[in-house]
Amino acid sequence: MTEVNVSSHAFDQAIRLVPTELNQFRGHTSESYANMVGPFGGITAATLLNAVMQHPERIGEPVSLTVNFAGPIETGEFTIEAVPVRTNRSTQHWTLQLRQNGLVATTATVFCALRRETWSEQELKAPSAPTPESLEQLPTEGRRGWLGNYDFRFVTGGYDPARPYESSSSRSLLWIRDQPCRALDFPGLTAIGDSFFPRLFTRRQQFVPAGTVSLTMYFHTDSTQLAQVSDAYLLGEAVANQTRNNYFDQSAYLWSREGKLLLSTTQIVYYKE
Amino acid sequence: MTEVNVSSHAFDQAIRLVPTELNQFRGHTSESYANMVGPFGGITAATLLNAVMQHPERIGEPVSLTVNFAGPIETGEFTIEAVPVRTNRSTQHWTLQLRQNGLVATTATVFCALRRETWSEQELKAPSAPTPESLEQLPTEGRRGWLGNYDFRFVTGGYDPARPYESSSSRSLLWIRDQPCRALDFPGLTAIGDSFFPRLFTRRQQFVPAGTVSLTMYFHTDSTQLAQVSDAYLLGEAVANQTRNNYFDQSAYLWSREGKLLLSTTQIVYYKE
Repeated sequence: MTEVNVSSHAFDQAIRLVPTELNQFRGHTSESYANMVGPFGGITAATLLNAVMQHPERIGEPVSLTVNFAGPIETGEFTIEAVPVRTNRSTQHWTLQLRQNGLVATTATVFCALRRETWSEQELKAPSAPTPESLEQLPTEGRRGWLGNYDFRFVTGGYDPARPYESSSSRSLLWIRDQPCRALDFPGLTAIGDSFFPRLFTRRQQFVPAGTVSLTMYFHTDSTQLAQVSDAYLLGEAVANQTRNNYFDQSAYLWSREGKLLLSTTQIVYYKE
Repeated sequence: MTEVNVSSHAFDQAIRLVPTELNQFRGHTSESYANMVGPFGGITAATLLNAVMQHPERIGEPVSLTVNFAGPIETGEFTIEAVPVRTNRSTQHWTLQLRQNGLVATTATVFCALRRETWSEQELKAPSAPTPESLEQLPTEGRRGWLGNYDFRFVTGGYDPARPYESSSSRSLLWIRDQPCRALDFPGLTAIGDSFFPRLFTRRQQFVPAGTVSLTMYFHTDSTQLAQVSDAYLLGEAVANQTRNNYFDQSAYLWSREGKLLLSTTQIVYYKE
């Protein structure tokens, strides 16, 4: 386990934004988080959220995020516009666009809020799982760049093109954390929330051209709780409900090692055949 | 069972939009679909989707929809701007804003696509349930206006303030359809997808001030299949995963009577205490 200074972590380099004018930021794609075509979607989602996190007018903390991947992002610079379209005393709605070469590549909406303590109950308990230390880490050498930034330890539903197995379900259960370790924050949680392999790979145990079209995340946590989680493994579960005519969905959840539900997330994913 | 001509159905009156200029529409709130404060969220979501459905530049059919309820909608006129921000050969991304009195009241994103037949599999099967005809219809007289537009038949997890019961779960299973009947289409499915009572009402069997902040829908269907479903009951299931400090989430699904998964949807909901 290697701890690195947060600011020098490849993740922080990748989501780094420079404010240019009101509501405008400039960023750059990161080779470390490259996927097959363009960046890993989770790093794009985290970068968009980061624009809100570092915006001087932000109030509260993120409660929900939706990202729509409208077109490819090419290697190089991009701009992000983040506009607080409606701000009340304790809530704030944002719309965002990531542009490159004059085209909208990604759109997003973010909702932030100041939360107070209320009647609370976690209805979705964490599934039981062996400890991450007792499980083998997924080898990522020779696979797509961004995978190497994560330590994946599958309980069930892994996918390794070199070792396909029989599968009748798209369900995966696994431990995940940044590699090297990084203290969890909202952008980090966002990226991990999109780090599940496409469910079709798991179900069919083969590569199929696929890409997320839209993802939504609900943050059931706050920065104090995230600081307590720090760089511990998160338990993740993901499943597809319906795969039909070019699009399948994914429902997924991330719990802290102590079983606290931190994130629920869904996405709809294009696939070719 | 009363069939009415689609165009004269209160639902079609409520989602009616008049195009004014490029990407601009004018609408009006409907008394029939009024909720406690402003319109029933499902009718607002359906109206936003309707702007895309009747936009002359639309290609394909809706695959995903996210609606953010940013502020109250008052009784009266509103405008909707629907912009196709990125169109490719077979996909189209939209951003929308509903404005009233110079303020953004609602934002939305829609993704449409032309779909082709591919390897398909429905992993989430419909729960077993008694027939709707064997169940009692929920009385809606004296309750909020919009409820009367739906025929709800609960299998489990109902909520009637006059008859609270002991509950340890937020889960509901019920049959739902428009009342009077109406042939299903994308706007109709959207509204039904937001017709579940706030999960906290079900769980705690009491009214708590609550309102949806953001909802996301994935359409696992097409207009041909919706026409086949027509005005039959849909089976709906909804559950909260996490209720914590002013916000709870809801995961919900709608199946056709034959068990086809038509919609998966999530939302994050504000509650006061």
